[in-house]
Amino acid sequence: MRIKPLADRVVIKRLEAEEKTKSGIVLTGSAKERPQEAEVVAVGPGAIVDGKRIEMEVKVSDKVLFSKYAGTDVKLDGEEYVILKQDDILAIVE
Amino acid sequence: MRIKPLADRVVIKRLEAEEKTKSGIVLTGSAKERPQEAEVVAVGPGAIVDGKRIEMEVKVSDKVLFSKYAGTDVKLDGEEYVILKQDDILAIVE
Amino acid sequence: MRIKPLADRVVIKRLEAEEKTKSGIVLTGSAKERPQEAEVVAVGPGAIVDGKRIEMEVKVSDKVLFSKYAGTDVKLDGEEYVILKQDDILAIVE
Amino acid sequence: MRIKPLADRVVIKRLEAEEKTKSGIVLTGSAKERPQEAEVVAVGPGAIVDGKRIEMEVKVSDKVLFSKYAGTDVKLDGEEYVILKQDDILAIVE
Amino acid sequence: MRIKPLADRVVIKRLEAEEKTKSGIVLTGSAKERPQEAEVVAVGPGAIVDGKRIEMEVKVSDKVLFSKYAGTDVKLDGEEYVILKQDDILAIVE
Amino acid sequence: MRIKPLADRVVIKRLEAEEKTKSGIVLTGSAKERPQEAEVVAVGPGAIVDGKRIEMEVKVSDKVLFSKYAGTDVKLDGEEYVILKQDDILAIVE
Amino acid sequence: MRIKPLADRVVIKRLEAEEKTKSGIVLTGSAKERPQEAEVVAVGPGAIVDGKRIEMEVKVSDKVLFSKYAGTDVKLDGEEYVILKQDDILAIVE
Repeated sequence: MRIKPLADRVVIKRLEAEEKTKSGIVLTGSAKERPQEAEVVAVGPGAIVDGKRIEMEVKVSDKVLFSKYAGTDVKLDGEEYVILKQDDILAIVE
Repeated sequence: MRIKPLADRVVIKRLEAEEKTKSGIVLTGSAKERPQEAEVVAVGPGAIVDGKRIEMEVKVSDKVLFSKYAGTDVKLDGEEYVILKQDDILAIVE
Repeated sequence: MRIKPLADRVVIKRLEAEEKTKSGIVLTGSAKERPQEAEVVAVGPGAIVDGKRIEMEVKVSDKVLFSKYAGTDVKLDGEEYVILKQDDILAIVE
Repeated sequence: MRIKPLADRVVIKRLEAEEKTKSGIVLTGSAKERPQEAEVVAVGPGAIVDGKRIEMEVKVSDKVLFSKYAGTDVKLDGEEYVILKQDDILAIVE
Repeated sequence: MRIKPLADRVVIKRLEAEEKTKSGIVLTGSAKERPQEAEVVAVGPGAIVDGKRIEMEVKVSDKVLFSKYAGTDVKLDGEEYVILKQDDILAIVE
Repeated sequence: MRIKPLADRVVIKRLEAEEKTKSGIVLTGSAKERPQEAEVVAVGPGAIVDGKRIEMEVKVSDKVLFSKYAGTDVKLDGEEYVILKQDDILAIVE
Repeated sequence: MRIKPLADRVVIKRLEAEEKTKSGIVLTGSAKERPQEAEVVAVGPGAIVDGKRIEMEVKVSDKVLFSKYAGTDVKLDGEEYVILKQDDILAIVE
């Protein structure tokens, strides 16, 4: 079973604290406001603006930083995911 | 009798809890905020932007996740439906 | 005497409870929020966007569902009507 | 002396209660919210959108329904008028 | 010395009560909300929309009605002026 | 060292009270709301709208009126400047 | 490891107080509102508007002034950065 996000939405999976430590990223600020690291698991086809589909900038398996409270949490086959708009993704971490 | 949604609206039918269990999706968060699973039963012709009709991304019989409080509830021939804008649909579940 | 709505406005006449029963539609939710069924009696020429007139999706004698508190009530020759924007019409019922 | 409204503005003159009775229109709702009947006395040249002037839909001597609190009241040569945007006119009454 | 308003701004000079009486205009409503009569003394080059400059509709020496609290008051060489956007001008009085 | 404002931003330097007296401009209203006179010291390249850069209307050394609380104060090499968007400039004074 | 900001986002590194003194910039106002000086360390590909990507105006190693509370703080490999939209950058300092 798969989740296919619509338009410019993206499905991501939060990376655990251990992974975060390995990648060397420590997010500052209070827990409520700090962005989180995640891996992209599904990417929508892109929004349509003025009749043209806008190509998405992220792709599956990208590591990304996103605003913690952006998007909607869903659990699928025992795993938790977040569905959010690509614009709520701050950056790709390589 | 049929409901034909206008523009970019979609008519969906909520999937019952049993079906949700079968599909393996468990929606997290409080009952108030969690998205719901539904089946598309009617799709509008698409919104018109800059004089062009935008093709819809969902089609009849798609299983979708949508924001629980999006749209308007109606009951037709004894069945309950929700009429909502396609943009309130988060993803298609396959 | 006739009412000619401007731009993308539509004039509709509420359908009585008996007619609603016949059509098989029962609208759920509290009385305050539930949509209502009505018949279209006049349709504006369509809004003009980017210099082009957008064709209307509803036509006279369509049965429609609309948000109860959308639009403005007027009484003409003893009959009550509602003038509202087409975007406040949720769907056509056939 | 004349008032020439700018862009998509219209100058209208409220029709008195007697005229309203003759035309057969009775406006429902509380006095505060009900629309009013008026006659168009001057029409702006139309707004300019994307470099093109949008033709006005109302013309001088049209009878119109408008939202009571839309626009601005002015008195000219002893007569009271309202200057409002065409979009605040709900419909033409014929 | 001159004030050259930018874009779609206009510099106007309020007309005194005596002049208002001569022109036959009496503005109704409370003093706080009533529009005022003024003479245009400088006109901006027009706003640029989609790369094209929109021609202004008012010209120097036009008598205009404007919303009393629109714009900004300035005093230049002993005279008081108002700088406002053309859209805050309701109509030209001829 | 120089400040290069981005897009449609402008760097201005407030003119002192004495200079204001010389130019003959006295700004009315309370100190909090009155616009101020300034000299343009740097001009951005212009905003990009629909893929085209919009040419700026002010140039270095123009005397301008601007809304007192628009923009951001910075001090550079001992001098105080304001960085603001061109749209917050009301007019050029010649 | 690198942070690649999306669209029109920029990653910047705050400049310390000593560097600020060397550059001669002293930012006025209360600490809460004053803009800050920073160095650009990564630049997004630019936003897409009407199907065209808008070229970014800042580049890596530019010294910039930005609104203190704009953007999101992140710490990467022990260094603190801010991810913000280019529009929250006021000016380039040369």
